[in-house]
Amino acid sequence: MTSMRFGVNYTPSVGWFHSWLDFDAEAVRRDLEGVASLGVDHVRIFPLWPVIQPARSLIRPRALADVARVVDIAAEFGLDVNVDALQGHLSSFDFMPSWLESWHRRNMFTDPHVVAAEADYVRALASAVANRPNLVGFTLGNEVNQFAAPPHPLPHVVTPEEADGWLATLVDVARTALGRSPVLVTNAMFDAAWYDDRQPFGPEHAVRHGDATVVHSWVFNGAAQAYGAMGSGSVRHAEYLAQLAAAWHTDGTRPVWLQEVGSPTNVVPVNDAPAFLESTVRAAVTVQNLWGITWWCSHDVSRTLPDFPPLEYDLGLITNDGRVKPTGERFAALARELRNAPASSPASDALVLDDDDSRAARAPGGPFFERWLQLADALGRGPQVVLRSQLGDSALLAARGIRSVHESAQPTPA
Amino acid sequence: MTSMRFGVNYTPSVGWFHSWLDFDAEAVRRDLEGVASLGVDHVRIFPLWPVIQPARSLIRPRALADVARVVDIAAEFGLDVNVDALQGHLSSFDFMPSWLESWHRRNMFTDPHVVAAEADYVRALASAVANRPNLVGFTLGNEVNQFAAPPHPLPHVVTPEEADGWLATLVDVARTALGRSPVLVTNAMFDAAWYDDRQPFGPEHAVRHGDATVVHSWVFNGAAQAYGAMGSGSVRHAEYLAQLAAAWHTDGTRPVWLQEVGSPTNVVPVNDAPAFLESTVRAAVTVQNLWGITWWCSHDVSRTLPDFPPLEYDLGLITNDGRVKPTGERFAALARELRNAPASSPASDALVLDDDDSRAARAPGGPFFERWLQLADALGRGPQVVLRSQLGDSALLAARGIRSVHESAQPTPA
Repeated sequence: MTSMRFGVNYTPSVGWFHSWLDFDAEAVRRDLEGVASLGVDHVRIFPLWPVIQPARSLIRPRALADVARVVDIAAEFGLDVNVDALQGHLSSFDFMPSWLESWHRRNMFTDPHVVAAEADYVRALASAVANRPNLVGFTLGNEVNQFAAPPHPLPHVVTPEEADGWLATLVDVARTALGRSPVLVTNAMFDAAWYDDRQPFGPEHAVRHGDATVVHSWVFNGAAQAYGAMGSGSVRHAEYLAQLAAAWHTDGTRPVWLQEVGSPTNVVPVNDAPAFLESTVRAAVTVQNLWGITWWCSHDVSRTLPDFPPLEYDLGLITNDGRVKPTGERFAALARELRNAPASSPASDALVLDDDDSRAARAPGGPFFERWLQLADALGRGPQVVLRSQLGDSALLAARGIRSVHESAQPTPA
Repeated sequence: MTSMRFGVNYTPSVGWFHSWLDFDAEAVRRDLEGVASLGVDHVRIFPLWPVIQPARSLIRPRALADVARVVDIAAEFGLDVNVDALQGHLSSFDFMPSWLESWHRRNMFTDPHVVAAEADYVRALASAVANRPNLVGFTLGNEVNQFAAPPHPLPHVVTPEEADGWLATLVDVARTALGRSPVLVTNAMFDAAWYDDRQPFGPEHAVRHGDATVVHSWVFNGAAQAYGAMGSGSVRHAEYLAQLAAAWHTDGTRPVWLQEVGSPTNVVPVNDAPAFLESTVRAAVTVQNLWGITWWCSHDVSRTLPDFPPLEYDLGLITNDGRVKPTGERFAALARELRNAPASSPASDALVLDDDDSRAARAPGGPFFERWLQLADALGRGPQVVLRSQLGDSALLAARGIRSVHESAQPTPA
């Protein structure tokens, strides 16, 4: 790892993601110039699946060209790009093609025709950008596991084994289409994968597929409610989730990517947002093998667009009309300071996690989370997490830099 | 009424209705040149709602311009145009905007924000074409009542009163936006409105709103199954449905528009299709005050597009690659022959319908349908239908040209 990557999730200022319907290179250029002014090195972009593949067999060449064009415009500003595929879900809105809805509803993870069509889409999208020198990553889709279980209103229910097969298929398709190894192929899940026992997509899936373990940290999940916006359980949440996710690693060098983290105003007061951001980032960069931090998001959603959850209108580092916000300035300063800082050595302390604990116990407020937090505050840095089943694997523990193991049932003296 | 209108429902040959995403004036021109070669006088066109209004407040100017462009291209070939708004539903596919789906699901007929947004859409779409001299009609949407009850997999359930209110609101919006009276404002329902007791949209709604009563005749509804493709109950189905719908008229001169009728190959063998078409058309033109017949559809769906019900690939009067089919030749010949034929005088016979009969009794195979058919075959022409509650309204009966009333319980000698 040469340096820590800092980036933003790109939310177009004009027309939000509906702007794919009216692709405007100049508007993208204006937005990405603003993003680049923050001194970040990459953006994550989100095509809308039904816009690109309105029929199973119809993958629109012009839509693929538009995506490639955004990658090229990013290059004009020295920005690398991660392309997400199956959107799918964005900021409370679902975008599913009509051939998967109502009369044509079939399971999106298991129906063979659907999975074959998704493979066609992933292949086409990956191929459209594969030769771009600034392509840094390709994610199967934004939090696709949202669709796999309640609380989604109409889940496409699958077993963990089926989820695994789906991931293996599509990661392979993307990898083959991209060819080059420096491009990270990843799978992005929302945190129910670690915290919600109903989720068929789980921690094993995060580490088994693709080239990095991806986490999305949102403190509206109970962390900020339980610990306060600036409480340790809130500003360490991203760090915790990254360490928790790494517990399933079998390769001590596998990167973790904090691919989404934001400051949601429903639980973090606007005035606290810059401090929340700074504390979150400073905590997260202590995670060993952290590939980078990609803030959500670039631009506030325009208040002329209704129906978003209120917090979505204020997540940008940049206002909808292009002014850098205090969070944007803080993120820019941290990126400058930290991008070339020496990589964090692994935390030598690790907290033992029982493999068959309920996932709820690991969620903010749960006993495992509490114990980790207690230890983090005592040590001044979050410990790693080690599975009990791996305690005997001294090579792995050595590779991970773990030297001191803490039982979660036995508090260390603070 | 100057003459009988003959037209087709325009199904684009390239990319079906997904072609709105890649609007191509030349492709439209090629298609409509083919349509015009049939000698028809109008087309009905179908924008996709979520493409035009992807967010409640975002009605895309370019998409509206594309619709207007199609109207103008039709004018190049002397074709008038009916524009449908809320698609909604087309050929088994639902197209609903993301702001009405999953996490944002709200009743599309009653939620005040949704109805206001639909009104905005209808207003914008109608305004975009209002000044076109070849605009002949504006329909709220294609069979929107599909969404209002089972068997839709996820119905937006409403009461008949709510359905009425919704129609009144949107017809008024369209009427106001269109301004000119020659443009027909209409509401199109699939036949469950007359045949299915679960449907909140019913016969009264067909006659109470807009400028014409619209019927869509599809013999896969049981008619062809019960009577055979060329049986009287099949080839008279469109005539019957038009007469049935007119029973609720309170204005003896209100037009009826047979806005959709087709020859579905799942129940009508391909070799019978031209004869089915001819018999259907010749039966339908006997209906008094028939505004016109709009065949479904112009072009076969390309077999490269999967997931359609099989019959949808063969409904065109023109093949997907532009050759006029035997049904197209037959429709063209009938249009030539019948468009300037003298208007049909009203059938002087009428069959009495009990107002509170179940709607199922009126469906193909039901006792009322059977009785009407028996009388039609005996008379050589389908009788009108008169509601028992209107039997005392001698002015209305006179206006409708009804001179002989038949009780459905007492068969006349054949």
